[in-house]
Amino acid sequence: MKDVPNLTLHTDKYQINMMYAHWKQGTHRQKAVFEVYFRKLPFGNGFAVFAGLERVVRYIQDLSFGEDEIAYLSRQEEEYESEFLEELRRFRFSGDLFAVAEGTVVFADEQLIRVEAPIFEAQLVETAILNFVNYQTLVATKAARIKQVTEEDGLLEFGTRRAQEADAAVWGARAAYLVGFDATSNLRAGMMFDIPTKGTHAHAWVQFHEDEEKAFKRFAESLPDQVTLLVDTYDTLKSGVPSAIRTAKWLEGQGKQMQAIRLDSGDLAYLSKAARQQLDAANLQYVKIVASNDLDEHLIAELKAQGAKIDIWGVGTQLITAADQPSLGGVYKLAACERDGVEVPVIKISGNPEKVSNPGRKDLFRILHPDTGMAEADYIPLSDERDLVERSTIKLFDPAHPYLHKFMDRYEAVPLLRSIFSKGSLVYDLPDLQQIREYHQQQLKLFWPEYLRKRNPEKYPVDLSEKAYRLKMDMIHQWHE
Amino acid sequence: MKDVPNLTLHTDKYQINMMYAHWKQGTHRQKAVFEVYFRKLPFGNGFAVFAGLERVVRYIQDLSFGEDEIAYLSRQEEEYESEFLEELRRFRFSGDLFAVAEGTVVFADEQLIRVEAPIFEAQLVETAILNFVNYQTLVATKAARIKQVTEEDGLLEFGTRRAQEADAAVWGARAAYLVGFDATSNLRAGMMFDIPTKGTHAHAWVQFHEDEEKAFKRFAESLPDQVTLLVDTYDTLKSGVPSAIRTAKWLEGQGKQMQAIRLDSGDLAYLSKAARQQLDAANLQYVKIVASNDLDEHLIAELKAQGAKIDIWGVGTQLITAADQPSLGGVYKLAACERDGVEVPVIKISGNPEKVSNPGRKDLFRILHPDTGMAEADYIPLSDERDLVERSTIKLFDPAHPYLHKFMDRYEAVPLLRSIFSKGSLVYDLPDLQQIREYHQQQLKLFWPEYLRKRNPEKYPVDLSEKAYRLKMDMIHQWHE
Repeated sequence: MKDVPNLTLHTDKYQINMMYAHWKQGTHRQKAVFEVYFRKLPFGNGFAVFAGLERVVRYIQDLSFGEDEIAYLSRQEEEYESEFLEELRRFRFSGDLFAVAEGTVVFADEQLIRVEAPIFEAQLVETAILNFVNYQTLVATKAARIKQVTEEDGLLEFGTRRAQEADAAVWGARAAYLVGFDATSNLRAGMMFDIPTKGTHAHAWVQFHEDEEKAFKRFAESLPDQVTLLVDTYDTLKSGVPSAIRTAKWLEGQGKQMQAIRLDSGDLAYLSKAARQQLDAANLQYVKIVASNDLDEHLIAELKAQGAKIDIWGVGTQLITAADQPSLGGVYKLAACERDGVEVPVIKISGNPEKVSNPGRKDLFRILHPDTGMAEADYIPLSDERDLVERSTIKLFDPAHPYLHKFMDRYEAVPLLRSIFSKGSLVYDLPDLQQIREYHQQQLKLFWPEYLRKRNPEKYPVDLSEKAYRLKMDMIHQWHE
Repeated sequence: MKDVPNLTLHTDKYQINMMYAHWKQGTHRQKAVFEVYFRKLPFGNGFAVFAGLERVVRYIQDLSFGEDEIAYLSRQEEEYESEFLEELRRFRFSGDLFAVAEGTVVFADEQLIRVEAPIFEAQLVETAILNFVNYQTLVATKAARIKQVTEEDGLLEFGTRRAQEADAAVWGARAAYLVGFDATSNLRAGMMFDIPTKGTHAHAWVQFHEDEEKAFKRFAESLPDQVTLLVDTYDTLKSGVPSAIRTAKWLEGQGKQMQAIRLDSGDLAYLSKAARQQLDAANLQYVKIVASNDLDEHLIAELKAQGAKIDIWGVGTQLITAADQPSLGGVYKLAACERDGVEVPVIKISGNPEKVSNPGRKDLFRILHPDTGMAEADYIPLSDERDLVERSTIKLFDPAHPYLHKFMDRYEAVPLLRSIFSKGSLVYDLPDLQQIREYHQQQLKLFWPEYLRKRNPEKYPVDLSEKAYRLKMDMIHQWHE
């Protein structure tokens, strides 16, 4: 194999073939407007959490066909002309890119990213943008569901060994931290993103020693204060917890405190309650209980309902793979393009009504009620509806059922799409992860609880403006004629 | 964020904490034997396909704590001593590693990798090995199920946009190719692994032009011979296929042939049959039909049963995320370790019978019938049972139900574990992907069809030797006393 750290060819071949065809036809510098959105919220959730922008920004900045990439392309069955390869050698992203901020609460059918660039450039970036945003948004959303259940309990990500390869492990850890996880077990993720890291010991540490208590004491004396001991190598209640209690007492004699015991198998409700009793009976009220073992938001909610005495939750496989729905169907669709020097809206028709695209370059606003400050709807006007903020009344209606409508004569319209690249230059000050975490928590406060409910949430309105809706209807009719 | 291409810290913090505790206790150079296995086959399949070794080899070769890694570790709350960090600076893998070859048909509860190294080294590599092998084996297995259904049809991987981040896209493409896929859409995967790449055009190409037929002709004239045209941008049967037919005829006039049309939405059974009729009526029998849209082995089997006229299958999301079971539960368990200079077997007890580990350093053989050449069972003796190959009779029995047994007095015992690293040096000649593909096809031929069946396969026997079984039973009894 050959290492290819350059992500420029991390794209589907059809992008290069379309770039080639545009170049051959001389249409490659014509401007195109693409929008990224997904059609259905994952996990039956009422919202998603946008993530992946930092990765997209680095990717766009680094886009460049190196000599190895050019050599590889020159060997393809398409026999690309050498002038085309020369064009690629000069390639850089020169367009505009708009995106919602990471941590934003987002919904189906609204543009999360808008790319405006020569079609030659806009086409290339589709695949990687979707690859990054689909996964990171998926895991951030899954993590938000888990965080909603664990509330103020400790919450740790340790899914690396079951993650879908290395990038998923680290970017998934970041997505989880972004919505409120406290730490990850993955040191590389900690190093890349400045996320706190946590770790105790494995069964192997206990197995390596003849005796569980001896293993615990040796581990505890080797590390500074506040160790966590894994108590299920042999028999949790008969051997693990009693050994941990003796270790805690021994540590007390040295002025140290054991932080926690960790349960990683068996019935976590029963074991945590019994372990809590044993710990309390030994006056170790301060020793916490960490639990893990294929946990997700449903199991955690049930364990809490059963009175499990768990202080800190370790979540791995179910989160990092988004196991109950391991992909988000984000798409990248052409909304407008330049013809004869003029930008014209385009549409994708489908027998499947939800697959008909919304034509035209559009913006995205969150409409807040001026008295409560709460979000009432997201509103998608065409980009040339410049007067939105000043308009005295807006009509909000459901594009699928237009008779469901209301007028608002007082509102605050908060633009969600921010300018990230302008004429190829990064113009956005990437927030750090702490800022994204805080912003995400503020975002959650904008929504009434019925939209955030984990099961059967109320559908939050995402509405086209009248003008954007009319354009779509007109284009559908035109197509049928 | 900080780029961290070095994968040495792609590990759980508890590994470093155990390494630290071993170092503090002076036990860090003691030898340990770890084995990688999974307990349950994915997808209800009768077998899995081992993949991930090439990635593991590169990872082990590149292991090294750089200055950035050391600096990062020096800032942790564990306050690792500087002498420990010095020890890490000198770190290299000095142990032995055995593994089955990529493409091998493997089963639950057999060792796919065995690591024998100072515990200091063997502990570090657990997380990354599992991360790589779990994902790649999972996708190779999923891909093998799909390949079983498509048989000699064309089979393309194009899951990148829905893959769980970038590494999953490329290593997943490799895993699919390994078991018999024909090509991937991901150019970077093609470049990394020398996999054929395929690509046509997207809806955006058609939308960009005023008229579908014009779009097709422009695309076809821009590329060399044998283009594939996507026919579902507006209306597949009324617009897309007729436009493609006119394009094919126009190409014929220029001495070129259209290779295929591609269907990407709607009812693929109906549309493919109707499209085939239209193509045949136009004397375009040579034009193939490619289909895609959330395909997996079940849907493909049903479409074929309904007589769908599909020649080439494009598989994305369902394969690249292994959607029906997005993780493989491979584990890395201590089987033996050095105490007082002697290697002793160790066990992990659990209330969960299938989680009790098999103690001792073990080998893995495939027992073939000498007359048929077919695989009868996999056989796991302790590594010191040196006489297996010469022994005249072996007893095969089910470890879960020992009364189920048979004796074989003629057999061929093929060792499956190969020496990959010896004393830290790579001693294995990594096969190229073509060789792995051929080897995988040979592997499949060793098994009776009942073991390979996609639904409710017969369980292939994986048997402990009598000695290995007795050791396990003795250690369980010892523990209870």
